[in-house]
Amino acid sequence: MKIYDVEGFPNPLRVRMALAEKDASDKVTFIAVDVMKKEHRSDAFLAMNPLASVPVLALDDGTYIAECSAIIEYIDHTFEGISLTGTTAKERAIISMMQRRAELMVLDAVATYFHHATDGLGPELEIDQNKAWGNKQGEKALAGFKYFNTILSNQAYVAGEAFTVADITLFAGLGFADFAKIAVPNEYTHLLNWRAKVAQRPSVK
Amino acid sequence: MKIYDVEGFPNPLRVRMALAEKDASDKVTFIAVDVMKKEHRSDAFLAMNPLASVPVLALDDGTYIAECSAIIEYIDHTFEGISLTGTTAKERAIISMMQRRAELMVLDAVATYFHHATDGLGPELEIDQNKAWGNKQGEKALAGFKYFNTILSNQAYVAGEAFTVADITLFAGLGFADFAKIAVPNEYTHLLNWRAKVAQRPSVK
Ligand SMILES: N[C@@H](CCC(=O)N[C@@H](CS)C(=O)NCC(=O)O)C(=O)O
Ligand SMILES: N[C@@H](CCC(=O)N[C@@H](CS)C(=O)NCC(=O)O)C(=O)O
Repeated sequence: MKIYDVEGFPNPLRVRMALAEKDASDKVTFIAVDVMKKEHRSDAFLAMNPLASVPVLALDDGTYIAECSAIIEYIDHTFEGISLTGTTAKERAIISMMQRRAELMVLDAVATYFHHATDGLGPELEIDQNKAWGNKQGEKALAGFKYFNTILSNQAYVAGEAFTVADITLFAGLGFADFAKIAVPNEYTHLLNWRAKVAQRPSVK
Repeated sequence: MKIYDVEGFPNPLRVRMALAEKDASDKVTFIAVDVMKKEHRSDAFLAMNPLASVPVLALDDGTYIAECSAIIEYIDHTFEGISLTGTTAKERAIISMMQRRAELMVLDAVATYFHHATDGLGPELEIDQNKAWGNKQGEKALAGFKYFNTILSNQAYVAGEAFTVADITLFAGLGFADFAKIAVPNEYTHLLNWRAKVAQRPSVK
């Protein structure tokens, strides 16, 4: 099993955290993709993932899996340990919904802000920016912080009382927000306390 | 079990098709949401789904599930019948990836084109349009048609040889494309043949 990614990038972090939560990081060979040199837009890479993004999981039988939610689904069902995606129909639905919200309201909103309203990865990579759209997504991320602060005032984790993939996605989203210089307002104490708690997990430290 | 939606809208169609595939349409009470009158942006609706969209599934215990992928996850694990989301780790990962691609590359791209580059649902609802972004997403949808045409030249369904939720999402995306007047080019015969085949399923007819 191989993973093509860039260490330190937000989406790759999601998969690396999931592997660490399953104590399975050593089951995978990581292959560095030179995103700054546009390797992810080469024909060879597009054959693995037409959406030109990292991470991509390569199974030993030659199957490629892209999209963090799909890769983590694979990891969760393949390795022992805590369940990241839930077991009952209701758990699975709630976790899936909350992880999708963490993408839509925070991680993807921050990513669009970063790539469209700031210099992003630089002029070589950001070839078709839309500043107005980027700024609107930045505002959406702020509304997302507020939403998750309210959620976390009532429960220990994003999808309930257990740590799941939804926490991983939101945690990666807040890391990306730091990098893109979108600050989480100090009054969102539930969100900030949750973040400090997640940062103490062995998968992050 | 109740579903708040609008009959005939593309995302509600996904959930209705999934229920029909499971022969479970009569297990659900449908409640019409008056989207044209902005009922989905009322405080009462936002308490069910902060992202102000239909469909929303309401479980008998008071839990609300939004996001079609999460709702269909629930339906698939609750009712008997064909598996829409897969059973093995690998199947589940491939189906999840392909259904995400059907969203990213077609359904959501078409939706953004519709809401931003056309009159969409009219001036009362489309209050903050970005035409350039909308048009770019329209181009993205055309590239998505090409991608899925190639995929369907090699296999019977979007995620392999079996019908899954990924087919439902792409089928809903093409229906939305018709409505938004983005035509699928005639030369995409694999995509068009697949569409004709899916249209013959009892869940659609
Ligand atoms: N939806 C994708 C998003 C992946 C993504 O956007 N990855 C970023 C790195 S964090 C990337 O590859 N960016 C390349 C670029 O911006 O050109 C997933 O879940 O894996
Ligand atoms: N990601 C959502 C999308 C739902 C969605 O966008 N629904 C449309 C109807 S097809 C809607 O509610 N639109 C309301 C609006 O545009 O204001 C899902 O999977 O359920």
